[in-house]
Amino acid sequence: MFNKIVIAGVGLIGGSLGLALCKRNLANEVVGVEANKDNLDLAIRVGAVHSGATLAEALVGAELLILATPIGVALGVLEMALPYLSKGTIVTDVGSVKGRLVERAEAMLPAGIHFVGGHPMAGLEVAGVAGAREDLFEGASYLLTPTERTDRVALTRLKQLIEGLGAKPMELAYQEHDQAVAIISHLPHLLAAALVNTVSADTKEQLLLDLAAGGFRDTTRIAASNPMMWRDILLTNRSQVLEAIEKFREQLNLIEQGMLRFDSELLVGSLTRAQNVRSTLPENRKYCLRK
Amino acid sequence: MFNKIVIAGVGLIGGSLGLALCKRNLANEVVGVEANKDNLDLAIRVGAVHSGATLAEALVGAELLILATPIGVALGVLEMALPYLSKGTIVTDVGSVKGRLVERAEAMLPAGIHFVGGHPMAGLEVAGVAGAREDLFEGASYLLTPTERTDRVALTRLKQLIEGLGAKPMELAYQEHDQAVAIISHLPHLLAAALVNTVSADTKEQLLLDLAAGGFRDTTRIAASNPMMWRDILLTNRSQVLEAIEKFREQLNLIEQGMLRFDSELLVGSLTRAQNVRSTLPENRKYCLRK
Repeated sequence: MFNKIVIAGVGLIGGSLGLALCKRNLANEVVGVEANKDNLDLAIRVGAVHSGATLAEALVGAELLILATPIGVALGVLEMALPYLSKGTIVTDVGSVKGRLVERAEAMLPAGIHFVGGHPMAGLEVAGVAGAREDLFEGASYLLTPTERTDRVALTRLKQLIEGLGAKPMELAYQEHDQAVAIISHLPHLLAAALVNTVSADTKEQLLLDLAAGGFRDTTRIAASNPMMWRDILLTNRSQVLEAIEKFREQLNLIEQGMLRFDSELLVGSLTRAQNVRSTLPENRKYCLRK
Repeated sequence: MFNKIVIAGVGLIGGSLGLALCKRNLANEVVGVEANKDNLDLAIRVGAVHSGATLAEALVGAELLILATPIGVALGVLEMALPYLSKGTIVTDVGSVKGRLVERAEAMLPAGIHFVGGHPMAGLEVAGVAGAREDLFEGASYLLTPTERTDRVALTRLKQLIEGLGAKPMELAYQEHDQAVAIISHLPHLLAAALVNTVSADTKEQLLLDLAAGGFRDTTRIAASNPMMWRDILLTNRSQVLEAIEKFREQLNLIEQGMLRFDSELLVGSLTRAQNVRSTLPENRKYCLRK
């Protein structure tokens, strides 16, 4: 239980965190810091934060600051917050790439202010608090990337808070985190975009879209996400994502070779490996069969 | 309305067609021809067909024969059916690739027996009649690939039947069909498989799978489909699919170049094109938000 939590950036993730914190009584006071007045008003109206304030006002007596801004500005906000952070305050973020942010945040913060990098593995293709959902993190992995410098008490408090959200806290070195999300999150995203663009570059684009069945729609759902946000993510995790693309190409080449050589064994081998692995994954919990 | 319809191959598609035909009273009699006795018994039990029979028995008095077997054996079944087909009988199929099948079927059938290639754009990752759903075709495009030789009356009757299923009949030249599905259906499938294999080839496979959130799960859902069926589809539509892979690679290269050169404009351009196009597509109708 926290007394006062400040959420800087009340968008989809910040808003969903706020909703869950408020509805589940995980903090006595949740204050939003948000440049967009309409978004802040909406956040207050839907109950994602109790009130709005400037960074300076909000941070008075705050025990926890959650940086939930777009990844490109999180460090800037942290820098602005520096003069107003008290000893003992915990700072975390929700960025999809951790390396650079964790290193800089640790270098920036004075002793006694505890930074722990965080990354909830949940999202939707909508932006802003309007799409926020109290249950967005339910059952989701919530990654924390502590370092040797991380305060263990702060880490434990954060883990308890995450469990309170219904999410599963998981510790990971930030290097490992950035490699993992490059493959499991960033690669799928750019593949979905490239697939949609393959369709739209075709002279028969409209016919193709008319024919798009569930398979295509599922495969490309994430391509509907915010391009600016994804550019920042891809460029921030650039070298890891480029490596992931290379690894994907190898697998695509295997399937292509199977087809080129009419190599049934190679082709069935690839498809069967994929089927076996994919079958072990649970269905997307945000969706349900209509049946 | 048909008097007697024969479905050869009562699996997911044949079974779902049978369920819809029976439940919607689109035929007085629906007879299943199915090599797998258990599957046939189940098909009768769930009401996907009224009865089962051999091809010879079933085709007595049949007005419509639907070839719903795996794509590799449809022509073989048609050949076996030849001696038992009466003048005026309509024959259609549900194969995902049309060129070769339509050409051979037309060459094989005598005058007076009317072939119309068909392809319902719907499916699930489960095989067999156990996964059949009466509403599988509801709202889905159902492609028909008539040629100059196609009997117009037969075509019209089929279209009416398809409308009766709740699907949207759509005419397309088979060449155009095979090009279109290579991009909109077969390419997404092999990309999903290659993506899953990228994960499973990684030394940290289990960590990656533990982190797999909704985005990855959606993107790879279709990779859980039957490998044999997909090998047949990919090899039958080989040259079109190989071309589709090439086109996809160009789009992937664009995104990669954007990252390599830190070319924000190129990168955002690609992601924005994808977002714009994907946003125009309706959500997958087989799924619903849990909210």
